[in-house]
Amino acid sequence: MTIEAVISEVLQRIRPSEEERAFVVELMEELKGLAEETIESSGLDVKPHFVGSLAKDTYLAGDHDVDLFLAFPLETPLEELRKKGLELGKVIAKKLDSYEIAYAEHPYVRAKYRGVSVDLVPCYDVKDWKDVRTAVDRSILHTRWVIENIKGRNDEVRLLKRFLKGIKAYGSEIYIRGFSGYLAEILVIKYGSFLGVLKNADFMLRQKIIDPGNWLKREYELAMKTVKRETGEDRPLIVIDPVDPRRNVAANLSWEKYGRFYFKAHQFLEGPSLSFFFPEEKAGGNYLEELRRKGTHMVTLLFEKPNLVDDVLMPQLERSARGFERALQREGFRVLDWNVGHFRGKAFIMLEVDRLEREKVRIKPGPEFFTERGWDFYRKNERVWLKGKRLYAEKRVKEGIVDVISELLSKNQVALGKTLREHIGGADVLLDYVPEELEKEAYLFLSREKGGLK
Amino acid sequence: MTIEAVISEVLQRIRPSEEERAFVVELMEELKGLAEETIESSGLDVKPHFVGSLAKDTYLAGDHDVDLFLAFPLETPLEELRKKGLELGKVIAKKLDSYEIAYAEHPYVRAKYRGVSVDLVPCYDVKDWKDVRTAVDRSILHTRWVIENIKGRNDEVRLLKRFLKGIKAYGSEIYIRGFSGYLAEILVIKYGSFLGVLKNADFMLRQKIIDPGNWLKREYELAMKTVKRETGEDRPLIVIDPVDPRRNVAANLSWEKYGRFYFKAHQFLEGPSLSFFFPEEKAGGNYLEELRRKGTHMVTLLFEKPNLVDDVLMPQLERSARGFERALQREGFRVLDWNVGHFRGKAFIMLEVDRLEREKVRIKPGPEFFTERGWDFYRKNERVWLKGKRLYAEKRVKEGIVDVISELLSKNQVALGKTLREHIGGADVLLDYVPEELEKEAYLFLSREKGGLK
Repeated sequence: MTIEAVISEVLQRIRPSEEERAFVVELMEELKGLAEETIESSGLDVKPHFVGSLAKDTYLAGDHDVDLFLAFPLETPLEELRKKGLELGKVIAKKLDSYEIAYAEHPYVRAKYRGVSVDLVPCYDVKDWKDVRTAVDRSILHTRWVIENIKGRNDEVRLLKRFLKGIKAYGSEIYIRGFSGYLAEILVIKYGSFLGVLKNADFMLRQKIIDPGNWLKREYELAMKTVKRETGEDRPLIVIDPVDPRRNVAANLSWEKYGRFYFKAHQFLEGPSLSFFFPEEKAGGNYLEELRRKGTHMVTLLFEKPNLVDDVLMPQLERSARGFERALQREGFRVLDWNVGHFRGKAFIMLEVDRLEREKVRIKPGPEFFTERGWDFYRKNERVWLKGKRLYAEKRVKEGIVDVISELLSKNQVALGKTLREHIGGADVLLDYVPEELEKEAYLFLSREKGGLK
Repeated sequence: MTIEAVISEVLQRIRPSEEERAFVVELMEELKGLAEETIESSGLDVKPHFVGSLAKDTYLAGDHDVDLFLAFPLETPLEELRKKGLELGKVIAKKLDSYEIAYAEHPYVRAKYRGVSVDLVPCYDVKDWKDVRTAVDRSILHTRWVIENIKGRNDEVRLLKRFLKGIKAYGSEIYIRGFSGYLAEILVIKYGSFLGVLKNADFMLRQKIIDPGNWLKREYELAMKTVKRETGEDRPLIVIDPVDPRRNVAANLSWEKYGRFYFKAHQFLEGPSLSFFFPEEKAGGNYLEELRRKGTHMVTLLFEKPNLVDDVLMPQLERSARGFERALQREGFRVLDWNVGHFRGKAFIMLEVDRLEREKVRIKPGPEFFTERGWDFYRKNERVWLKGKRLYAEKRVKEGIVDVISELLSKNQVALGKTLREHIGGADVLLDYVPEELEKEAYLFLSREKGGLK
């Protein structure tokens, strides 16, 4: 297939139909009317703003969640905004099908209406970056900037977003650290098209700084401060937010996700195929065979999933997995890799290790011999020897990894995500075995089909 | 037993009897006569000197090897001294029972006479340290200094030597790095008695510098240079040679051997017993049981012993063992300890390891992804992933330690003692098994009774 043929086929699938467009437009008008009506009757000075991909017309077919921001005057105290904003959201949501309260920097209402998710988020009605007070305030500015600059290249953004989703590099959530929708929009605006962005995968990494808002001319000092800070953090890209010189739009983009984009962009240009956009689901395989093939083992900790959103839970699971990695390495097990996640009310940490049993003795380093502590060490230990001036002794230790893990946990020697300690304490520890629902996950993890580039 | 009782019993055993003394005196006179006669008839200007523990009367009962040095005038060229010295030694030795040529800094004659080993060593007839030209020249000065300063404390030296032998801290050979006889004599002269030396085990370590020749007054700069150099080398003791301010008598004493002396001296003073001087031979035990107890494994390399003296062979075996330690650690095996030695024409290297098989895959770190080499690595490897900006891949490797060792050797990836490479290349590699003659050695090694302090 030629690039043109692939792109045209992809667009067929991701460009919203006239029908969907009409539905979306109708929905937004209806919601706007509802919001204005409610605001009016509540006597508040609030403006409803649509933000996000719907407002920018960069949403993918079938993916049309609504972000309706409720913008309060700048002089509103923060506490009042939080309280009244949530209340207002609730009053609006009551006229919709259903709703619940969700939590980000401040609480907001997540409603359902005509099968669509509708977020009702209070924010400040900012005119420019100097007014920004909460994390969500910029969304209105982003939406406006994209609308002003996109100049009909909406489908190019759709292509890039779908490509990034296909290669698993999309999503700015902290546990994903991929490309955000806004970053994709900026890149298309900067490089003119979907293919323009792909062709510059190498160049933009080398150029490093992208400044579509021209801040390095307009606000040199602030912009340079951002560049210096983000260079210090060694980000793959520094994209100075066109609406705020203090912010790197790509601050949350990891080298790993940029690397995926880098290789896949090159490969797509060399051999275009639909599969970059719509990869076949991995077939899976036998994880036990994979363990035999590699000569390794897998320890899985399985425990109640705490009631946390992914944005909070996933980083804590990752932190805990790294804690186990370090603690087990210290104890003489090699951890080749780890994997975390959750399914049906359970959270899991998978650790691929070199073996399930270690030797029964460990070598314990002691102090220098000619010290008080040297004598203590000499007296307390049965088998003692010197290497240079330092004493060493043999120490009997637990052999099996399950015993080692429970000892580590009981002695509090694993750095765990803070709210997970209790849950992990009660975890089942499974050796070279997972429940049926995790078999595919285990295979994809062990075979590196999950984290791998190929 | 009281200290006095122990000491008196030990002296009974180590002080030469009147009979032995008479034999030694007679032997020395006879050898002296023979030497003088030979020198005279050869027309050389050479003086025979007895040196070593016989000359100083600090030898242990039954241990009366003769060191007869043949001192040439200072103006003799070195080549001539080597040649004529060896010839002269041979002519003398021909009048004895048998002889062979031995090699140190220069070759010398090692003869046998009336059951006693007689070394005939050519040297310069030095008057003081400024004349010293070869390593052996100082012996005459040492002998003279000890005779002048020992003041009847010969038995105290005998006690200290026997104690050091008993606790395995005696011998200045490079593969032993313990106390030399001369160092024992100096310490007795300095601290007045055997017990005086033991009581100062802690103090002398802290004081660090012992200067019985008063060089820090007489030759301040030279002596300070020695102190600074030896401090830089982090020696446990700096004993400025009373006959040569440039030399640390304890330069070859290791921390390990000093540590043995340190602990045993304290323990002897607290609980005196004959066993410090005459330890019971270790009973030995079952090395296979020891391996089971520890949950470890032993790899033994067994090969033809090259025709080298211990002074040369042992350091090379040690160097090779350390080479295997490092190489195997790199390959994912943990080496707990090693042991080397030789018996009946065979040399061996024992390695205690955590396991005999490792996992079948290793993680191979690659280059940063956005480079030429990054693309190469990506293309060449099947399972590739990113950690930060660095690529990694899975690599299939040999599982068994025997295969790993032969691969390491064939790729020349083990740092080996230089003359051993060929011999080790043809080694038998034994797993958890040693020939019967090595069973006790293996047990003592694994149980830490060999290298241990207790």
